[in-house]
Amino acid sequence: MKPFMNEDFLLSTPAARALFDACKDAPIFDWHCHLSPKEIWENETPRDLAALWLGGDHYKWRGMRGCGVPERLITGDAEPVEKFRAWAKCMPKFIGNPLYHWTHLELQRYFGITETLSEKTADAIWQEANRQIAAGGFTPRELISRSNVACVCTTDDPADTLEYHAKLASDASFKTKVLPAFRPDKALAIEAPTFLPWLRQLEAVTGKKADSYAALKALLLERVAFFAEMGCRATDHALSPVPFRPMTEAELEAVFAKALRGEALSADEAEGYRTGLLRFLAKEYARRGWAMEIHIGAMRNNNARMFRSLGPDTGYDSIGDEPVAYKLSRLLDSLDAESSLPRTILFTLNPRDNYVLGAMLGNFQNEEAASKIQFGTAWWFNDNIDGMRAQIAALGNLGVLANFVGMVTDSRSFLSYPRHEYFRRILCEFIGGLVENGEYPADMEYLASAVRDISFYNAKRYFGLELSD
Amino acid sequence: MKPFMNEDFLLSTPAARALFDACKDAPIFDWHCHLSPKEIWENETPRDLAALWLGGDHYKWRGMRGCGVPERLITGDAEPVEKFRAWAKCMPKFIGNPLYHWTHLELQRYFGITETLSEKTADAIWQEANRQIAAGGFTPRELISRSNVACVCTTDDPADTLEYHAKLASDASFKTKVLPAFRPDKALAIEAPTFLPWLRQLEAVTGKKADSYAALKALLLERVAFFAEMGCRATDHALSPVPFRPMTEAELEAVFAKALRGEALSADEAEGYRTGLLRFLAKEYARRGWAMEIHIGAMRNNNARMFRSLGPDTGYDSIGDEPVAYKLSRLLDSLDAESSLPRTILFTLNPRDNYVLGAMLGNFQNEEAASKIQFGTAWWFNDNIDGMRAQIAALGNLGVLANFVGMVTDSRSFLSYPRHEYFRRILCEFIGGLVENGEYPADMEYLASAVRDISFYNAKRYFGLELSD
Amino acid sequence: MKPFMNEDFLLSTPAARALFDACKDAPIFDWHCHLSPKEIWENETPRDLAALWLGGDHYKWRGMRGCGVPERLITGDAEPVEKFRAWAKCMPKFIGNPLYHWTHLELQRYFGITETLSEKTADAIWQEANRQIAAGGFTPRELISRSNVACVCTTDDPADTLEYHAKLASDASFKTKVLPAFRPDKALAIEAPTFLPWLRQLEAVTGKKADSYAALKALLLERVAFFAEMGCRATDHALSPVPFRPMTEAELEAVFAKALRGEALSADEAEGYRTGLLRFLAKEYARRGWAMEIHIGAMRNNNARMFRSLGPDTGYDSIGDEPVAYKLSRLLDSLDAESSLPRTILFTLNPRDNYVLGAMLGNFQNEEAASKIQFGTAWWFNDNIDGMRAQIAALGNLGVLANFVGMVTDSRSFLSYPRHEYFRRILCEFIGGLVENGEYPADMEYLASAVRDISFYNAKRYFGLELSD
Repeated sequence: MKPFMNEDFLLSTPAARALFDACKDAPIFDWHCHLSPKEIWENETPRDLAALWLGGDHYKWRGMRGCGVPERLITGDAEPVEKFRAWAKCMPKFIGNPLYHWTHLELQRYFGITETLSEKTADAIWQEANRQIAAGGFTPRELISRSNVACVCTTDDPADTLEYHAKLASDASFKTKVLPAFRPDKALAIEAPTFLPWLRQLEAVTGKKADSYAALKALLLERVAFFAEMGCRATDHALSPVPFRPMTEAELEAVFAKALRGEALSADEAEGYRTGLLRFLAKEYARRGWAMEIHIGAMRNNNARMFRSLGPDTGYDSIGDEPVAYKLSRLLDSLDAESSLPRTILFTLNPRDNYVLGAMLGNFQNEEAASKIQFGTAWWFNDNIDGMRAQIAALGNLGVLANFVGMVTDSRSFLSYPRHEYFRRILCEFIGGLVENGEYPADMEYLASAVRDISFYNAKRYFGLELSD
Repeated sequence: MKPFMNEDFLLSTPAARALFDACKDAPIFDWHCHLSPKEIWENETPRDLAALWLGGDHYKWRGMRGCGVPERLITGDAEPVEKFRAWAKCMPKFIGNPLYHWTHLELQRYFGITETLSEKTADAIWQEANRQIAAGGFTPRELISRSNVACVCTTDDPADTLEYHAKLASDASFKTKVLPAFRPDKALAIEAPTFLPWLRQLEAVTGKKADSYAALKALLLERVAFFAEMGCRATDHALSPVPFRPMTEAELEAVFAKALRGEALSADEAEGYRTGLLRFLAKEYARRGWAMEIHIGAMRNNNARMFRSLGPDTGYDSIGDEPVAYKLSRLLDSLDAESSLPRTILFTLNPRDNYVLGAMLGNFQNEEAASKIQFGTAWWFNDNIDGMRAQIAALGNLGVLANFVGMVTDSRSFLSYPRHEYFRRILCEFIGGLVENGEYPADMEYLASAVRDISFYNAKRYFGLELSD
Repeated sequence: MKPFMNEDFLLSTPAARALFDACKDAPIFDWHCHLSPKEIWENETPRDLAALWLGGDHYKWRGMRGCGVPERLITGDAEPVEKFRAWAKCMPKFIGNPLYHWTHLELQRYFGITETLSEKTADAIWQEANRQIAAGGFTPRELISRSNVACVCTTDDPADTLEYHAKLASDASFKTKVLPAFRPDKALAIEAPTFLPWLRQLEAVTGKKADSYAALKALLLERVAFFAEMGCRATDHALSPVPFRPMTEAELEAVFAKALRGEALSADEAEGYRTGLLRFLAKEYARRGWAMEIHIGAMRNNNARMFRSLGPDTGYDSIGDEPVAYKLSRLLDSLDAESSLPRTILFTLNPRDNYVLGAMLGNFQNEEAASKIQFGTAWWFNDNIDGMRAQIAALGNLGVLANFVGMVTDSRSFLSYPRHEYFRRILCEFIGGLVENGEYPADMEYLASAVRDISFYNAKRYFGLELSD
C-alpha cells in the first residue's frame, strides 16, 4: 500500500517517476485563470484559512451543498471558523473527488501540513494554518512567487481599463508577468440583459459611441489594440452552443440596431450576430498572432432561486449536451477559407465530446505552428484524474501529444497552482506507463524534454511569451 | 492467476478485501425492482431451474438471440430442459458479459454449485438444481429471506389495488417489507393507446370520474394518499426524453379534453401535458418527503414484429440518445423555484451522459438531505463492471460518493440479489484501489462505515425507511 | 520495464500470451478495405519507402500537419527522401498514437528493422528499407501473400466495371481472393453534385437509361447481380446521419425526376430518397444473403481550402455528433418488419455511441446467424488501443463477444495487415485479463477457439466465404 499522497503520488512506475523528476521544477505559465489583478496588486494578507479556501471557491461550496451543509455555513453569515469546521467535516466524504487531493496538496505544499483534514483535525489545522498565514508568505504575490509562476493570463472584458495590469507591469519587484486575456463574452451576448449596460461601459472606456455595428467593431478593434499594448496574447470565448449562421453586414447592422432599440431578438438573429462578430474578432486575433480559446459546453446558472440570491459563478453551473461538430467545423473552416483562422484551443466541458474535438484539430492544422489547433486540457468538471487522463489519451490517439500546451488552473484562488503539479503527475504516469508497457521506447532523454515542453515550454512558444530572464 | 469467481472475486487488493468484509453482510434495501407482489404472496415453489431463470428474464433471452438460438427455445413451446440446454450452450460465449457472472453467482450462492455452466455440464447442473428446488428453499419468500433483504420496493401503477402489498403487510411471518412505489407512466403517456383504458382503470379503482384534468389530478392525489398509507416512499418515471414545456392550467385542461375525445395530440401538446402533470405530482412527492426516481434514455419496443408476437419487456429495448441537459435542468429548476423539488434520483441509460447527470446534481443540492439529488446506479445495459465503475467514478469526481444511495436490482427475478454483492465488490475494489494507490488515506474505519452506508444505510435514511428491528 | 514492442507487445499476462499464440497464425480475411484492385493486378514494385508509406496515407499526412510540417513535405513536390525525413522527425512526437505502433510494426514485420524511427535513424532506415524493396518482395501481391491474407473485399461503386477483379480471379497464381464490395454511396447522394455524373456512368456501364426511379432500381439490381457473379458478399454505406423518412413510390419518382431536372432538393426530399433506395437495396442484400455494413458518424471534407487543392480523403475528415438511435432503430425495424433485414454490421465513428450501437444489436438478433447484427470493430479515429478495447468491452457487455466478426484494416495501404495482429493482441489481452482476474474460467481450449474464430473463422462463416483450400 502506498502512503497517502507521498512524493510518488500518482506515479506508479520508475519511468513515471523519472519523467516527473524532469518536469516538476519547470516554471508555470497559467495562461487561463480568473485571478483578480486588483487583488494581486493590493497584495493583502488573507484573514485566515477560511478566507483563502472558502471565500470564493464555488467548487468547495458545491461539495458542501452535496453534503447537506446549510447555506449559512457556506456563503452565509456564519463565523469563519464555523465554515471551516463544516468544510473539514465534509472532507472525508469526498472519496474519489479532486477536492480531496487539491485540499491536501495545498496543505502540504503551502503549509507543510501532512495530516489529513477531518472533523477531528479541523481545529489543529485551523490554528496552525492561521499561525503561518499571520507569520507571512501568504499574500497573492508571495503565493504566486512561491509557486514558480512565470506568467498568468487573467480573463478580462474588452471594457476593462486594465489599470491593475498596468500597475503590476510597472512594478519591477514582482517577477511574474500578469497579462490580460481578451474575453468579449458580453459583446457577443446580444440578447442578454447585460448587453446594453455593457455597451455603455465600452462607450465610457473609449469615449466614443457604439451606435452601429460598424462602430462597435471599431471600438472593439481599439480595445484589442489596447490589450495588445498591455501584453495580451490570448482570448477566450464561452460558446454554448457554438454559433454558425452567416449574415451579411447589412443584416448584422439591422440586428444590432434592433438590439439597440431594446427589441427582443430571435434565436437566429442572435446566432447570426454572434457568428459575425466572432468571425470579425477571430480575423483580428489571427492578424495579431493571438490564440483563440473556445470553451464549449457549459450550461450556467441552472438554479434561478440561488442565482437571485448569490449571483453567477456560485456553484450552480453544469454540463450541456448540445451538438458540437458541424457548426464548429463550419465556423473554423469559414475562417481558414480566408486564411484568417487564429491559433485556436478547443475545450469541451462534456467529456463525451473528447473525440469530436480531438478529431476536429486535424482539419485545420498547418505549418503556422506546432499543433496550431490545440485540444485544451480537461476543464472544470473534468479537472480530475479521470478527466485529465481521458483528455491526454484522446489527444495522444488523435493528435500530437508532444505539442500539447498543457495545463491551466482556470481558478479564482491563489492556492491553485498545485493543480499544475497534479497534471504533471498524471501526464508522467500516462507516458511512463507507455514506456513500462513497451508501448513507447525508453528514450528518457527525449521524453524528459517532451514533458518539460508540455509543462511549460510549448505554451511559452505557442503564445509567443517573452520572458526577461 | 486468480481462480474463477472465488471469495476474492473482483477484489484485487487487501484494502478492497477489507472493505468488502465490512459491508458484505449489510442487509439489502432493494428500493427499485419489478418483482410481482402477487408472486411473493402466493409463494410457490418454482417448477424447475428453467422456470427460475428463463421464465421471464429478457436479459437472458437477448443473450440467446445473439447466439442465433431459435425463438422456439427461448420464448416458444420447447420443453424446459431443451430451453435450459440451449441457454447452457450459449453460456461460454458470454465473454465479458454480466450474464456470465450473474449466472454463476446465482449457482454459487443459492445452489452451492461452483462448476461452470456449459453444454457439457448442463444436464448435471439441471438435475442437481432441480433436486434442490424440489427439496425446498426456493419459493420467492425463501429466496428473499435467504438473501438478507430488509425491504423491497416494487413498481406499481396508480390504478393498482395494492392488494398483495396489503396481504404481505398483514403477514407477520414474513420479515421483509414489501412496499409499493408509485409509477404513473401511464398517466403521463397521454398520446399512447394505453391512456384511455388506463383512465377507465383509475376510475374503476377510485369509483370517481376523471372527466377533466382537475379531476384527474384529484384522483391521482387520492392514489398518492393511498400509496402513502401502504408505506410508499419512492416514485418512478421513465422520461424518454425529458419533457419541459410549461402550459397554463387552461391549456392543460384543453389538451386533456382533446385526449378524452380520442383526438390525436401534437408532440408539443403531449409534452406540455407531461410537464404539467409531472410538476404537479413532484410537488406532492416533495410535500410527502417521497423520492422521485427519473429514468432517462430508454428506447423501447424497437422490434415491431416481436412486439406484436411477445409484447413489451421481452428483450427488444435499447438506448436512446436524445438531449438531456437543458430540459432536465429547467424541469428541476421549475420545482426548486417553488421550493417543491423532491428528493430526486437521476438514472441515465446512455452512459455518455454520466457527466451530464453527475454535474446536474450540484445545481440543486441543499440542506434537505445528504445529497438530496442523487445519481442513480448504473442501470440495465450499464449494469456490469464497466458501467458500475464508470458511474461510481463519475459520482466520486462530481458529487459525494459517501452519500450514494447505492444499488438496486431493477429485476423481475427472485434470484437477482447477488447483483448487490456484485455491486459491493466493485465499489470496494474502487475505493480500495484509491487507498492502495495513496489517493485516499488508509482510514479503514471510516471507509468501512462509508461502504456499509452506500450498501444499505444511506438508502434507509434517504427514503426514511423504518424497520422494526 | 518491458522492451519496446517485443514479442509480448500488449500482452501482460500468461493467459493473454497463450491466447495470442493460439490465434496469431490464423489467416486474415480483410472484409473491408480500400485497396485498389488495379494496383494489385499491376503489381508494381514500389519506388521506395516514401511511396509505400507516404504516397496516399492520409493518417500520416494528418500527423505531419499536426507537427507543423509544411504541406510541400507532405503532399507537395518535395523529394521523396525529404518527405521521409520530415516524417521520421515527427515520429517521436506521436506519444500514445497508433501511428507510432503501426510504423514500427511495419518496420519489424516487413523489413525486420527493430530500430525506432527518428531524425537520427531516418537515413539508415531509408537506405536499408529501399535496399530491401529493390531486392524484391514488396509488390502488392507479395505483401498480401506474406501477410497470410485469405481474402480481401475492396470497396466498389455500382458503376465500376470490376475488370481488375475479373483479371485477378482468372489468375490462379495469386491465391488470395480479391472480392468486390458494393458501395452505392453515390447512388444515395442524390443532392450532391456527383449524382448526375454518376448516373451517366451507371448508364454507360449498363448501356441502359436511368430515366426514372424505377429504371434506376432496375439498373442497380443488374449491378447487384453482376457483383454477385464476381463473388461479392458485402456492401457498405456511409450514413451521416442515418436517414429515415418513408415515402411512397410515387413520391420517390417525383424526387428522382426533380433531381434529374437538376433542381435543388430539400433536406427532407433527399432523406426520403435515401431511405427509399436504401431499403430497396437492403431487401435485395437480404435476399442474396449479403451483409450490409453501415458506417455512421463521419463528417467529411471539413477544410474547403484543402479540399479544393487536394480533393477528398486527404486527411480533412473528422467525427460528427448527429443523433443515431431513433432513426437507426426505425430503419432496421422497417426492414425486419418485412423479414428483409440483411445481416448488418454497425460501425460508429463517434465512440460516445458505442453503447447505443451495442444495445441496438439485440433488437434484431434472431436465428438467421450467430449474431446476425454485428457491432463493427473500432474504426478510423478509434482504430487504436483505447478504441479497440472500448469496442470489445462494449460488445462483451451488451452482445456476444465470441461471435464477433472482428477486425478490418479499412486501409489504402498494402502494409496495413499488422493492424490485424495489433487487434488480436488487444483482444487476447482483454480476454486474458478476464481469465487472470478470475472473471472468466481458465478454459483455455475454448478461449483459444474463440479468439481464432474472432480473428478469422466467424467472418468466414458470416460472409459465407468459400475457400478452395
